[in-house]
Amino acid sequence: MSDMTAVFSDIVGDNNLLSGDAIPEDYAHDEELTAPPQKPAYLAKPARAEEVAQLLVAASDHGVPVTARGSGCGLSGAARPQPNGLLVSFDRMNAVLEVDTANQVAVVQPGVTLTELDAATVDYGLGYMVHPGEASSSVGGNVGTNAGGMRAVKYGIARHNVLGLQAVLPTGEIIRTGGKIAKVSTGYDLTQLIVGSEGTLALATEVVVKLHPRLEHNASVLAPFVDFDQVMAAVPKILASGLTPYILEYIDNMTMAALISTQDLELGIPDKIRDSCAAYLLVALESRTTDRLFEDVETAGEMLSELGAVDAYVLEGSAARKLIEGRERAFWAAKALGADDIIDTVVPRASMPKFLSTARGLAAAAGGGAVGCGHAGDGNVHMAIVCKDPDKKKQLMSDIFALAMELGGAISGEHGVGRAKTPYFLELEDPAKIALMRRIKQSFDPANILNPGVVFGDA
Amino acid sequence: MSDMTAVFSDIVGDNNLLSGDAIPEDYAHDEELTAPPQKPAYLAKPARAEEVAQLLVAASDHGVPVTARGSGCGLSGAARPQPNGLLVSFDRMNAVLEVDTANQVAVVQPGVTLTELDAATVDYGLGYMVHPGEASSSVGGNVGTNAGGMRAVKYGIARHNVLGLQAVLPTGEIIRTGGKIAKVSTGYDLTQLIVGSEGTLALATEVVVKLHPRLEHNASVLAPFVDFDQVMAAVPKILASGLTPYILEYIDNMTMAALISTQDLELGIPDKIRDSCAAYLLVALESRTTDRLFEDVETAGEMLSELGAVDAYVLEGSAARKLIEGRERAFWAAKALGADDIIDTVVPRASMPKFLSTARGLAAAAGGGAVGCGHAGDGNVHMAIVCKDPDKKKQLMSDIFALAMELGGAISGEHGVGRAKTPYFLELEDPAKIALMRRIKQSFDPANILNPGVVFGDA
Repeated sequence: MSDMTAVFSDIVGDNNLLSGDAIPEDYAHDEELTAPPQKPAYLAKPARAEEVAQLLVAASDHGVPVTARGSGCGLSGAARPQPNGLLVSFDRMNAVLEVDTANQVAVVQPGVTLTELDAATVDYGLGYMVHPGEASSSVGGNVGTNAGGMRAVKYGIARHNVLGLQAVLPTGEIIRTGGKIAKVSTGYDLTQLIVGSEGTLALATEVVVKLHPRLEHNASVLAPFVDFDQVMAAVPKILASGLTPYILEYIDNMTMAALISTQDLELGIPDKIRDSCAAYLLVALESRTTDRLFEDVETAGEMLSELGAVDAYVLEGSAARKLIEGRERAFWAAKALGADDIIDTVVPRASMPKFLSTARGLAAAAGGGAVGCGHAGDGNVHMAIVCKDPDKKKQLMSDIFALAMELGGAISGEHGVGRAKTPYFLELEDPAKIALMRRIKQSFDPANILNPGVVFGDA
Repeated sequence: MSDMTAVFSDIVGDNNLLSGDAIPEDYAHDEELTAPPQKPAYLAKPARAEEVAQLLVAASDHGVPVTARGSGCGLSGAARPQPNGLLVSFDRMNAVLEVDTANQVAVVQPGVTLTELDAATVDYGLGYMVHPGEASSSVGGNVGTNAGGMRAVKYGIARHNVLGLQAVLPTGEIIRTGGKIAKVSTGYDLTQLIVGSEGTLALATEVVVKLHPRLEHNASVLAPFVDFDQVMAAVPKILASGLTPYILEYIDNMTMAALISTQDLELGIPDKIRDSCAAYLLVALESRTTDRLFEDVETAGEMLSELGAVDAYVLEGSAARKLIEGRERAFWAAKALGADDIIDTVVPRASMPKFLSTARGLAAAAGGGAVGCGHAGDGNVHMAIVCKDPDKKKQLMSDIFALAMELGGAISGEHGVGRAKTPYFLELEDPAKIALMRRIKQSFDPANILNPGVVFGDA
């Protein structure tokens, strides 16, 4: 393959094209745990959609694989570049183009981080409600993985909050899909097809996101349960009550112990209760008025007690915030504790007890362990897998994913399959669906330059 | 083309395959206004996905076009069959297979009507919240058109309420997409691609829909405004308030007059106010408790007055119900009044005043008229177009759609392009997007048997 440095430099300018050793180490990986870093051959930082289009045309013409990168905090390896490839970083396309209060949308470039978008919208009393664990994540990355996070139980996932895109096809065509509109039924929904496609179909260069009103008052109730099944049985009851929690998480006792020690949390739960309980349910409520919030908190506390909770603790502002932040950083706790892999499997939420107990049994049988927490309202289980033997770990992961699928779930609820989970996806998914997805991929990307390997594996 | 009667009969049984004159008139059309009825060559009523698969394989092998039909109440002609084609009716696949309260989903066959699904879920305090105007519409039809309706402002459109499908590909493969899961990021989202594809990609044979808790208490506030722009300016304020109306509709004065007379409505609005106002905003609120409902109704009333409403009328139960039902049947009122066509264009909601005034001007200039009502919270404008000259009407429709698209909107918000709006879609949409959609269509349906003509026009 010819050296493309000059070609790509001509497009983005010398200052915005790095190659070889000049590429910083940070661009060689995302936060996926298992794969070694891999630098790309080229790193381009385009400033405009037209530059992205020219990069993709040049890459198509010369068969250069292209990987898109937001903040590099993905957990499945979808932003890990190819050694002979071009990494397109959206560092410079990081403007909030518009906060449109009448339509309750923001128009942003893909490199905007959630922290930046939050700052740009807070004064309007509006917000982008997708909160994956990492506030430094980019909106473009959220689009790529179809990010979820704790607030999905009320506000939905990225898919539900992305209304439109400007996207560059691998052929260099720049299209606009959807828009500042709440609904559309005019041809196929290209927005929804691109969301969650992990950079394999098109590169988003502009994103229209939905904003929701920020409700001023919030509080959290933490309920320890002796029996894990009771935690799960409580979830549909709480959701059916109309209380509309914006966070509904379970945290198992081992993970809670890790959070308490690493985050220096003071939750006011007596040791005796902590020692005896199997898991916690965290219910966060928000409201327009303090009166309603107090009422809802009381109702939630009563419900939780009736549903078998040992007690229900209303967390004060800072304790609640620390616990939620700690929960968001559970991945880092898992990493620090020496997890060998992570999963973010989704199952029908009523199947969580069966999934969790069986998965733990599988892990124990493999000489390892599986602990975690998760989005109880969504059936989205985050587990840290400890299993030092690589072959056993691979089999264990495969068995856990197969179990999830038998229960009607899927391998990934929000991280995507990326590079790390693609082998399991190809092993376990219906071949008819994989073949159909390959044909869809082909319809976007005939030269197969966009993130080859991701979703479909290496040829 | 050979006579396929025997082939199709073998699959579904003699009793469930009609051909020629034996096919009832009702199967020759949906509710689209402009096209003449067209009977298919064959009408099959399969009972199972496997029969649907065999029908599609036979149709692919023999090049027979296939149109799917739910209740036949679509408004864009997507269920109008081809003269040499097979119409697949889901009359017999009309079972509610499961109401799963723990996962808050229902699993239904495509022929189930919304009335039937409502009856099956009401005792659980849960409901499928997509309410297009027609309660006799089928869930399969909702999937095909990505149906919306008045409650979309709170509960979203069909796309947001369809979690999974069993679908038959034109190749005869039966796949399952999504499931009883709230989120998934594992390969491309085939569910969302099939939803809204108007029977051109695959036929849904089972649908997993989301159920929401039914809030027990509701009330409606009707606010007349002298100035139409004030109606539209009020909308974002109400949505940003956190009041979360489940219906937020505007009704122009001519449509309201038609509703009042055809529905025999008693709204308690003095004639003087009715005569002086340009449009009404209807705000329906619901709550877990009567106290909160009263409070919210009061807040809404105060807000509406501050935002320029002449008054705010809290409608009693039966008056509110009749008005909402009347609004749902606005299409029939338009039809009865001699509308020559209808549109359901969507624009960014802040662009509605500009869109409406310009569209009315275009209609007047063409010697016709444009009146209506719409989903104010969604920017989804329903207009009855009166314009007797067919050529002028065609130009007028094209001009109105072009206007909507210039404002960042789309031709159809919820009816789909079907047969009726496809010529405009092909004329006005970005050719790069149409070409991409054609390639996606090809990736599902290489023999081009599923609803040819719809979305892409006749070759």
